[in-house]
Amino acid sequence: MTSKVSRASVELDQQGTEAEGLDALYEKLADAHMIPLWTQIHELMPQRPAPRAQPYVWRWNELYPLAKRAGDLVPVGRGGERRAIALANPGLDGLPFATPTLWAAIQYLGPHEVAPEHRHTQNAFRFVLEGEGVWTVVNGDPVAMRRGDFLLTPGWNFHGHQNVTEAPMAWLDGLDIPFVYQTDTSFFELGPEDLTDTSTPERSRAERLWGHPGLQPISLLGTRASSPLPVYRWQNTDRALTDQLALEAEGHPATLEPGHAAIRFSNPTTGSDVLPTIRADFHRLREGVGTAPRKEVGSSVWQVFTGKGTAAIDGVEHELEHGDVFVVPSWAELELHADDALDLFRFSDAPIFEALHQYRGVIGGGSHQ
Amino acid sequence: MTSKVSRASVELDQQGTEAEGLDALYEKLADAHMIPLWTQIHELMPQRPAPRAQPYVWRWNELYPLAKRAGDLVPVGRGGERRAIALANPGLDGLPFATPTLWAAIQYLGPHEVAPEHRHTQNAFRFVLEGEGVWTVVNGDPVAMRRGDFLLTPGWNFHGHQNVTEAPMAWLDGLDIPFVYQTDTSFFELGPEDLTDTSTPERSRAERLWGHPGLQPISLLGTRASSPLPVYRWQNTDRALTDQLALEAEGHPATLEPGHAAIRFSNPTTGSDVLPTIRADFHRLREGVGTAPRKEVGSSVWQVFTGKGTAAIDGVEHELEHGDVFVVPSWAELELHADDALDLFRFSDAPIFEALHQYRGVIGGGSHQ
Amino acid sequence: MTSKVSRASVELDQQGTEAEGLDALYEKLADAHMIPLWTQIHELMPQRPAPRAQPYVWRWNELYPLAKRAGDLVPVGRGGERRAIALANPGLDGLPFATPTLWAAIQYLGPHEVAPEHRHTQNAFRFVLEGEGVWTVVNGDPVAMRRGDFLLTPGWNFHGHQNVTEAPMAWLDGLDIPFVYQTDTSFFELGPEDLTDTSTPERSRAERLWGHPGLQPISLLGTRASSPLPVYRWQNTDRALTDQLALEAEGHPATLEPGHAAIRFSNPTTGSDVLPTIRADFHRLREGVGTAPRKEVGSSVWQVFTGKGTAAIDGVEHELEHGDVFVVPSWAELELHADDALDLFRFSDAPIFEALHQYRGVIGGGSHQ
Amino acid sequence: MTSKVSRASVELDQQGTEAEGLDALYEKLADAHMIPLWTQIHELMPQRPAPRAQPYVWRWNELYPLAKRAGDLVPVGRGGERRAIALANPGLDGLPFATPTLWAAIQYLGPHEVAPEHRHTQNAFRFVLEGEGVWTVVNGDPVAMRRGDFLLTPGWNFHGHQNVTEAPMAWLDGLDIPFVYQTDTSFFELGPEDLTDTSTPERSRAERLWGHPGLQPISLLGTRASSPLPVYRWQNTDRALTDQLALEAEGHPATLEPGHAAIRFSNPTTGSDVLPTIRADFHRLREGVGTAPRKEVGSSVWQVFTGKGTAAIDGVEHELEHGDVFVVPSWAELELHADDALDLFRFSDAPIFEALHQYRGVIGGGSHQ
Repeated sequence: MTSKVSRASVELDQQGTEAEGLDALYEKLADAHMIPLWTQIHELMPQRPAPRAQPYVWRWNELYPLAKRAGDLVPVGRGGERRAIALANPGLDGLPFATPTLWAAIQYLGPHEVAPEHRHTQNAFRFVLEGEGVWTVVNGDPVAMRRGDFLLTPGWNFHGHQNVTEAPMAWLDGLDIPFVYQTDTSFFELGPEDLTDTSTPERSRAERLWGHPGLQPISLLGTRASSPLPVYRWQNTDRALTDQLALEAEGHPATLEPGHAAIRFSNPTTGSDVLPTIRADFHRLREGVGTAPRKEVGSSVWQVFTGKGTAAIDGVEHELEHGDVFVVPSWAELELHADDALDLFRFSDAPIFEALHQYRGVIGGGSHQ
Repeated sequence: MTSKVSRASVELDQQGTEAEGLDALYEKLADAHMIPLWTQIHELMPQRPAPRAQPYVWRWNELYPLAKRAGDLVPVGRGGERRAIALANPGLDGLPFATPTLWAAIQYLGPHEVAPEHRHTQNAFRFVLEGEGVWTVVNGDPVAMRRGDFLLTPGWNFHGHQNVTEAPMAWLDGLDIPFVYQTDTSFFELGPEDLTDTSTPERSRAERLWGHPGLQPISLLGTRASSPLPVYRWQNTDRALTDQLALEAEGHPATLEPGHAAIRFSNPTTGSDVLPTIRADFHRLREGVGTAPRKEVGSSVWQVFTGKGTAAIDGVEHELEHGDVFVVPSWAELELHADDALDLFRFSDAPIFEALHQYRGVIGGGSHQ
Repeated sequence: MTSKVSRASVELDQQGTEAEGLDALYEKLADAHMIPLWTQIHELMPQRPAPRAQPYVWRWNELYPLAKRAGDLVPVGRGGERRAIALANPGLDGLPFATPTLWAAIQYLGPHEVAPEHRHTQNAFRFVLEGEGVWTVVNGDPVAMRRGDFLLTPGWNFHGHQNVTEAPMAWLDGLDIPFVYQTDTSFFELGPEDLTDTSTPERSRAERLWGHPGLQPISLLGTRASSPLPVYRWQNTDRALTDQLALEAEGHPATLEPGHAAIRFSNPTTGSDVLPTIRADFHRLREGVGTAPRKEVGSSVWQVFTGKGTAAIDGVEHELEHGDVFVVPSWAELELHADDALDLFRFSDAPIFEALHQYRGVIGGGSHQ
Repeated sequence: MTSKVSRASVELDQQGTEAEGLDALYEKLADAHMIPLWTQIHELMPQRPAPRAQPYVWRWNELYPLAKRAGDLVPVGRGGERRAIALANPGLDGLPFATPTLWAAIQYLGPHEVAPEHRHTQNAFRFVLEGEGVWTVVNGDPVAMRRGDFLLTPGWNFHGHQNVTEAPMAWLDGLDIPFVYQTDTSFFELGPEDLTDTSTPERSRAERLWGHPGLQPISLLGTRASSPLPVYRWQNTDRALTDQLALEAEGHPATLEPGHAAIRFSNPTTGSDVLPTIRADFHRLREGVGTAPRKEVGSSVWQVFTGKGTAAIDGVEHELEHGDVFVVPSWAELELHADDALDLFRFSDAPIFEALHQYRGVIGGGSHQ
């Protein structure tokens, strides 16, 4: 943090002896590990969020080749644990963080490679832009990863991955690593190097228990901090969005705004977010549709699933294509526009701020508060 | 309530003048609308629940012909509102109540009949034992009723029914009418005599919005006292139960006890019960399986969907066949046995007692507390 | 319930053979323990609550002498357990219930008498109109009872009472006995005949742990269904009401309506009601003040602590004096008027209906819905 | 974050062309704002919390003279807003943060000085080590600050302070500034420069509404994210702790561990913490008592109110005297020992981690996990 001096102290500086005394005081304070508020307040407590994280777009046609090249050069295994490459926000001083709270990475697994099992308190998900053939094994339960699927690895569950095909596969990893890092709440434990279950079932056991709409297994009842459903399959997401747009076309309320269908991935045991720190949505815009401007506290990361369009963030327009990942910092104004029909995956840290009663959001751009 | 006299007062009766004084006192108390606790406490506050409701089985092969006969003789329409015939527990003094809190009725709708729209604070559901061809219209949204489906009409939603076929249809209605009646919380309002929407879509609008596992429409987010999903389709229920038994066979925990699969119908916005006052489950027993004895506070009503077996209630065995409805009063011990593979629908008032911290249950029959 | 026949069936009666058929059907239904909805719906599901319980006032100058007479004639002890005389609502068929859910009784304990220990799932409180000298022992912790105090005995806590003085003492008992009775959820267990602790401390142990505003003992943290504070002392209640009226006089919002101060007794571990089934408030009206008309779902019982005034219930005015107890049935309209400054204690079953999402209330009398 | 290279990549470095390729890859990744996980994972995701914040003690006899000197040299007023001097953890790179989430500062207000009104989303409290004569005005309600009092200024409430005496006054400010800063959720608004109410009542209006144990004003019912009680008075805190130790001496469970009394300041509308992000406790150790070792996720700040003793943090012992402030980083082991009877105020960020299901704690030092 740069040192700013408030009006109050500036005036003092213009006077003689007080200024000398003040210099001496500041020196003594520094020695005593003390820092005045009055020199810091404008940076520390801005009138509205003034994030260091910047809006930024990573291009899939740049991301993927780099991940592939890492696949050629860097083995995956114990020690490094994962061949994941983090998107580092240019505003965050070289830290491997997409936003102050969220981690986004492209993970790449070559033919027949295995990422060994471990667990950590960080909450994780995967979103599959394209490809298939990897099974993620969560607490010994193999879950197939396929195009469009959204998969969960909630904190402190052992997990590993294996690619059973001849083709590589890459996907988006999302975690709360930055939040856990900043708050010193990381626990991490290695599991076996070989996967505990190498079978490749069509449906995981947890899907068979929890994947039926509105039905809960009585033997497993009870609320859980994270969703027990390990994967949200693309065909369901696609169908839900298709239904919303069809209902809208039939004249019924269903969409978030005209031409804009949207679903939230939710925890069936509570009805709230899938992970305690991460919210995940999927959005679909009809061709030609633009969204109302929207601002909210906290940050989010988007990935284009299909289609073309633009994201205007605080008035700066960014072109969007298949696979592009972009960041919306806290309180930045976002407007989306679909050139083609546009499908977007999105995750954010909103559950943190809702739980702590710090959440604010505005739609419509009226208020710049 | 019969008047019981406690030991204390009995002893008094044996003495002369006190007894006279006591008689005079009791007379004066009665005049003043006052009643001593000490003459009532054993009935009012038993050591364990002593329900007046009795275990009882209504036979489908008796219920259905009577409903059919009513279909011949009694028109359905404004005034009577529904051709529903309540199961009246023999222990409840001629009241049309299955248990002190729960209403269970067979409702019968002839070819092309319409039951007009109304709404009430009583929470309702329908369970479809057999047949199809009726649409229930809930707040203007027509919902197809088919074999095995579980349908909701939460309190204060307008609803009516129409049969669009040449065949009659009958189903089980469950409501909290007795509870609402006892607690004086009924509001009731007539709607239009003609249905607001007579279309017969394959899927209702609410199913299209809420029927995707783990997905919520962002435009409709928020917790609701009752489930927004209007129907839980049989194919999902069946598949979930099949999956549980298959997982058990593969060696994984999934069932409630060996050979006993069970799901709970749940509210996707909260993960809790579908209605604030009513819990609904579906149970499947493999052929030959018997359940552990089980007791719980509050009452439940069961209907056999398919198969044959027995229910032992407080040690008395009852034969069960397709469509039979039986009642388990509070704290009665229940053991089920499947002769054939047995599928059962069940509803209970447990959410009332859980919400009020009065719930107790025991499994295994060890404690008779 | 009287048998009402709907229009639909009346029309049928006017025709020949159908009527005969209908009679036969009704007979068969009765034999099969089945009752048609269409003959019952108007009584079962009224347009608005139509309670059988009636508004009624019991006069303290009648209650107290009868309790005293019972003190002369009826011993207190094991078997009868308590010398409590219930207020029996004239509309409730001779049941000892003030309302369909609430029990209200006057309990009388003579000089040096002891009521033995027991526990039950019914939730209980005491409100002390006048007198002192009794200690209620809750789970082995003696709690002094004094004028104006509101004392709790939540469900399943052992409790007994002893009078350590030469003077008798009487107080109001409130319980959820009718609700527990109707729902078959009573468990009851005898404790020792002699009190487990006969000491008479100024403050109970639980008061010393929980009686400090906003402070919780860290060793006992956690939410509880019922308040851990065993008594709400009159001096605090009085001071809170005095403060509200003083703040109002100083021009600040504080009162429920002009001249009407009101506090709710609350559970410090949750901020909600003191008992899961019972709400308790205290109200103070300045001399000359009248309240706006008010209706709510569920029933309540009031006792005049000091002052004189009137209660108009559904337009019928009742004179009120010290100690008078009156009942307001569900959805009955209540207006209070203070001739003198009027202090009133009140309890209701509202937590039941709030927990189950059945609560409704209106202020101002505008809507008669 | 320093760049660490995992075993996987080290091995690669030893080979020729791959290493060149790897260097080229890392360069390209840096250009693309991408950072490999495998070089960072050990720092980013440690096996247990590895906080950069250090255990540290600020001495009151150093803090206070510096604050006093600032009082001589630096005016208080609009712009700098407060004469508060933050305790800057030596491990946190010169940021004015006591821990990664918590701000602790000494605020100093000279005779007749006024700190102008503002509001911000940061949650704040004050703890008064010594002195009196300042009123903090929260939303227009003046609240007296006196020795031992714990005062709240929840987020987004306007507040200012005035000293009405001839003597200066200093106190401890605690806020969640670092957390809000890291998460970009700050909103800040200036209020009037002159206080909205300069009166100096003995009790604030909010105390008169909310300061009665277990009683809530019915006109203001409802849960709130932060406590509506603006101050927790020392006489209540002291009495609660005295009661706990007395109960322990009488043989009853009351203390946290032998000789260690402890209370939590709580929100009477929910029973949970006073602020959404900050927990506050008060601890009292009998002379000679030592606490069991204790570790928990998240950080805390302590201030010695009275007495002498030691704090051993991760095995390093620190002497403690009146007014000393010390920090316990995440998962550091703390043992306290009282030479004299020792009174300590403590605040922490635990509500954040409890809300997000990240909380862990151990007592007894057995496990070093």
